[in-house]
Amino acid sequence: MKIDVYTTPAEVSETALQGNGVVVMDILRAGTTICQALRSGCKEIIPVASIEQAIDLAGNLIKDKTLLCGERNGIIIPGFNLGNSPFEYTSERVAGKSLIFTTTNGTVALDKAKRAREVVIGGFVNFLSILEFMKRWESDISLLCAGDKGRLSLEDSVCAGMFVWHLKRYFGKDVHLTDSARAVEILYGKFKNKLGELVSTTAHGLYLRSIKFEEDVKLCAQIDALPIIPIYRKNKVVRYEEAK
Amino acid sequence: MKIDVYTTPAEVSETALQGNGVVVMDILRAGTTICQALRSGCKEIIPVASIEQAIDLAGNLIKDKTLLCGERNGIIIPGFNLGNSPFEYTSERVAGKSLIFTTTNGTVALDKAKRAREVVIGGFVNFLSILEFMKRWESDISLLCAGDKGRLSLEDSVCAGMFVWHLKRYFGKDVHLTDSARAVEILYGKFKNKLGELVSTTAHGLYLRSIKFEEDVKLCAQIDALPIIPIYRKNKVVRYEEAK
Repeated sequence: MKIDVYTTPAEVSETALQGNGVVVMDILRAGTTICQALRSGCKEIIPVASIEQAIDLAGNLIKDKTLLCGERNGIIIPGFNLGNSPFEYTSERVAGKSLIFTTTNGTVALDKAKRAREVVIGGFVNFLSILEFMKRWESDISLLCAGDKGRLSLEDSVCAGMFVWHLKRYFGKDVHLTDSARAVEILYGKFKNKLGELVSTTAHGLYLRSIKFEEDVKLCAQIDALPIIPIYRKNKVVRYEEAK
Repeated sequence: MKIDVYTTPAEVSETALQGNGVVVMDILRAGTTICQALRSGCKEIIPVASIEQAIDLAGNLIKDKTLLCGERNGIIIPGFNLGNSPFEYTSERVAGKSLIFTTTNGTVALDKAKRAREVVIGGFVNFLSILEFMKRWESDISLLCAGDKGRLSLEDSVCAGMFVWHLKRYFGKDVHLTDSARAVEILYGKFKNKLGELVSTTAHGLYLRSIKFEEDVKLCAQIDALPIIPIYRKNKVVRYEEAK
């Protein structure tokens, strides 16, 4: 079994993920927000790449059952119902609703994963749930970091490294790590005892704190705060239990 | 001063490097081979992306002053004069000649750097020469790893990390590191006392050893074995001393 890591979606070729089990990582904040939204009982999350697509799609859906959600540069898109802070996604706001969701980095990564065998969204907040889920995979595994505007983000790469570290110990000798998988495992080793500190000092962590999302940054680094398995199937993200 | 690192050329956007000082890294083996070729007195190296371009260009140059050089999958291109092993680039073969050079990864990276203010080729074999050269730069610095077929290669990233580590200590407080620069610095920290072992166990290092280039791999990891400053200007690579 091969474990491979993409530190940015730009590296993913058209067919690279075909047949693989894929975990998409977007720690700050889309992945975390998706976990929170599903926990709060939203019906589904429909990721789209552009604001235009989001508005188009909303026009075709039942109005009081649909919310427009997303950010650009960390800030809620004008006219949208919700931004990209997990704290906005309360049961009161989202239970039973379809969420059309567009974010700077996360939706690009999901789009790249669409030919994979199975795609889940993993982060620090649902780490153990996703790790357990992956143990059933017999295919090669790809960890796909959303990164930050096409570049490596340290919080995503370190989280990927945390998965590599644990998977290697679980699957043992059967595992082959690519160079990038070895690299992120080393990064995790450096930060494993200070994940909170790491996430709050990466480029995007510092930026979010500067625009008053300090509490978001803290939540996104908390192991198993939101033990949900978000699965991406047929262009929608739902809870795994409800996808069968 | 910002120090940024691209672990693959895919991440580089059209204008990202404009105005910057850039070091291109392709440890196994193009960067190392270029240093050896210049040391052996070749007139210039003309990097081209494809075999077709190489053959086209050779047709327009003086025949006994020009050599066709390059590899695909590590092996000399059929009909070409030289492959990509530094040991082939002796004075007897290359002195005074123009080398048309096409390799799997290195030429892609150089092409991406074309809009930069100044571009040099750096690796373990010319580390201190390049480091000294960079100390005169006042612009932002980008370290561009050629990688391995569009993916991160650990030998390039660790060498980038070695530059980051030393530059940070030289420029001190004025330096701002991006997330990717922080990442490769950590990778360097992990391997700094075993660079030879590292280079011989990366994906591409293992591959080259499997096709009998063990000695190449050893040479490519040797600090300052080939103290040359290859500079890329007007689509050619020459020794810095001869570029003025």
